[in-house]
Amino acid sequence: MNLADHYRGRKVLVTGGLGFIGSNLAIELERLGADVTILDCLIPEHGGNRFNIAPIDGRVSVNISDMRDANSLNVLVEGMDDVFHLAGQVSHGDSMRDPQLDLGVNCISTINLVEACRHHAPEAVLVYTSTRQVYGRPESLPVREDHPTVPVDVNGINKLAAEYYHRLYDRTYGLRSVVLRLTNTFGPRQQIRSDRQGFIGIFIRQALRGERLRLFGTGEQRRDFNYVDDVTDALLRAAANEACHGGTFNLGAPRHYSLLEFVAALAKHTQVEYELVPFPDDKKIIDIGDYYGDWSAFADASGWAPEVDLDEGIQRTVEHYLAHPDVYWR
Amino acid sequence: MNLADHYRGRKVLVTGGLGFIGSNLAIELERLGADVTILDCLIPEHGGNRFNIAPIDGRVSVNISDMRDANSLNVLVEGMDDVFHLAGQVSHGDSMRDPQLDLGVNCISTINLVEACRHHAPEAVLVYTSTRQVYGRPESLPVREDHPTVPVDVNGINKLAAEYYHRLYDRTYGLRSVVLRLTNTFGPRQQIRSDRQGFIGIFIRQALRGERLRLFGTGEQRRDFNYVDDVTDALLRAAANEACHGGTFNLGAPRHYSLLEFVAALAKHTQVEYELVPFPDDKKIIDIGDYYGDWSAFADASGWAPEVDLDEGIQRTVEHYLAHPDVYWR
Repeated sequence: MNLADHYRGRKVLVTGGLGFIGSNLAIELERLGADVTILDCLIPEHGGNRFNIAPIDGRVSVNISDMRDANSLNVLVEGMDDVFHLAGQVSHGDSMRDPQLDLGVNCISTINLVEACRHHAPEAVLVYTSTRQVYGRPESLPVREDHPTVPVDVNGINKLAAEYYHRLYDRTYGLRSVVLRLTNTFGPRQQIRSDRQGFIGIFIRQALRGERLRLFGTGEQRRDFNYVDDVTDALLRAAANEACHGGTFNLGAPRHYSLLEFVAALAKHTQVEYELVPFPDDKKIIDIGDYYGDWSAFADASGWAPEVDLDEGIQRTVEHYLAHPDVYWR
Repeated sequence: MNLADHYRGRKVLVTGGLGFIGSNLAIELERLGADVTILDCLIPEHGGNRFNIAPIDGRVSVNISDMRDANSLNVLVEGMDDVFHLAGQVSHGDSMRDPQLDLGVNCISTINLVEACRHHAPEAVLVYTSTRQVYGRPESLPVREDHPTVPVDVNGINKLAAEYYHRLYDRTYGLRSVVLRLTNTFGPRQQIRSDRQGFIGIFIRQALRGERLRLFGTGEQRRDFNYVDDVTDALLRAAANEACHGGTFNLGAPRHYSLLEFVAALAKHTQVEYELVPFPDDKKIIDIGDYYGDWSAFADASGWAPEVDLDEGIQRTVEHYLAHPDVYWR
């Protein structure tokens, strides 16, 4: 499938489009010739950042509003061919500290969006970025989509509910929706200044600042890492391929790396030291051990396969952040 | 286990305690000697009714407030030994017409409750009444607790999320919680004036008014019916038995009846006629066919077994409503 042929001239809404994955997606959509509207509420610390879309500034429409406000959403979805729903709260710790906020941002916003699409954009294709966190601790590896869902934090529960809304509206109202369960995504344009976006961002910030990296436990937990360009490619394919519509799919990677391998690669590209330290109790309680997903169903439906391996992805990531220290980490 | 010995003098909060099951539970708790506080917000049409607690009026404390307001909940849970969480929106149709309201009443309220208990009543036992609707259409019968959860309406999704909050807070914070998945509960004190509480209430109202009962389709779908006294017994056992804490359990019944058998029994006790009519499309879409649950896990953990069979339950139910026509149905 030629994505440029598909997206040229299409009207596309990207919620959370000033955030990490949303901004990378918007940049790629603009490059493919789509007519892009970004929706973001720029909640401080949630990851949105106007600089993220500097490469397409002035060539996309930016609308600042909160998706918990249903009225503006009703207007914004009108006439859209595709809606990529990336807005949300992603911090597991924050979801435990303020579960009500997490519920509002992840569930109320999503109910509002599917209702808006049902009534005002029933022909739109809707892609939702969920998370491997909906599975909790894996019972078997690689994790398939029919693995039990036992989230270990409020964020995982609310993302799971948001998935269900998408599937229900697809089945009941014929709204075409795709749910992608993302795993560990890394790359340029992530909010790495605070600890809110997870361990990858924390390590990258520390490495950029020349700090010694400290990894909890043995570092042997294996994960599947996706470079952000591969994730935006997955999102674009999910909406463009009818075989994906109505489905719920894992992303994943051909190779699995230990956290120690990730840290070692990052340390290599930033010339910092790293060490193993004992696991603090409050972190241990939400650690899920090894995780890697079976992404064959999505590969079959969309033709997707990740192209950027860990080492190359880290190199590109470090280059991006080094070029913009004041925006992201200094 | 002697429930009176257990509950005598215990401080107990019943959310939704002016509603159908909540009021029956509060009456039984008062009879057992518990110190009962009822919390209800009396949202019109949601099922609450002050007359429901006429038998214990003045002997229990009634607090009118909305659980979406976290502050009053924090005060109300303090010092409680048991919290029975029955407040909620239960209409499947309403959840599709106003999904945001359903989310608020079922999810925001529940998050507020588990947070309130975590901080202000960490020793309390918390029992949540969920629903068989979380399973959706059964893939196999009888449905066990590990059956996939594929809700067919917004209400089922939100109840499922509320279940997850209970399990998460049990696992993560040591709050002792039990989730019971109720099936078709019937009996005195249900709101039967509107169609909101499901088919049982609709048929009972029609029968009491002497109307001809019209059953959609063949009426061959089999269900498990629980008389409300058996459900309150289940709730009391769930909180009192440590073996139940942390668990998620189906209720169910030893015998399964077709909807036609239910209607025939109701018609017999009210001397009305009944007939089969074709299924309307809008009802067919949410019909789940046969459903009956495997309740052996709960029986093992609690010693519970339903004692009131369909015919006797319907007889008692009809007697209650005939004694109070102006309150419930005329």
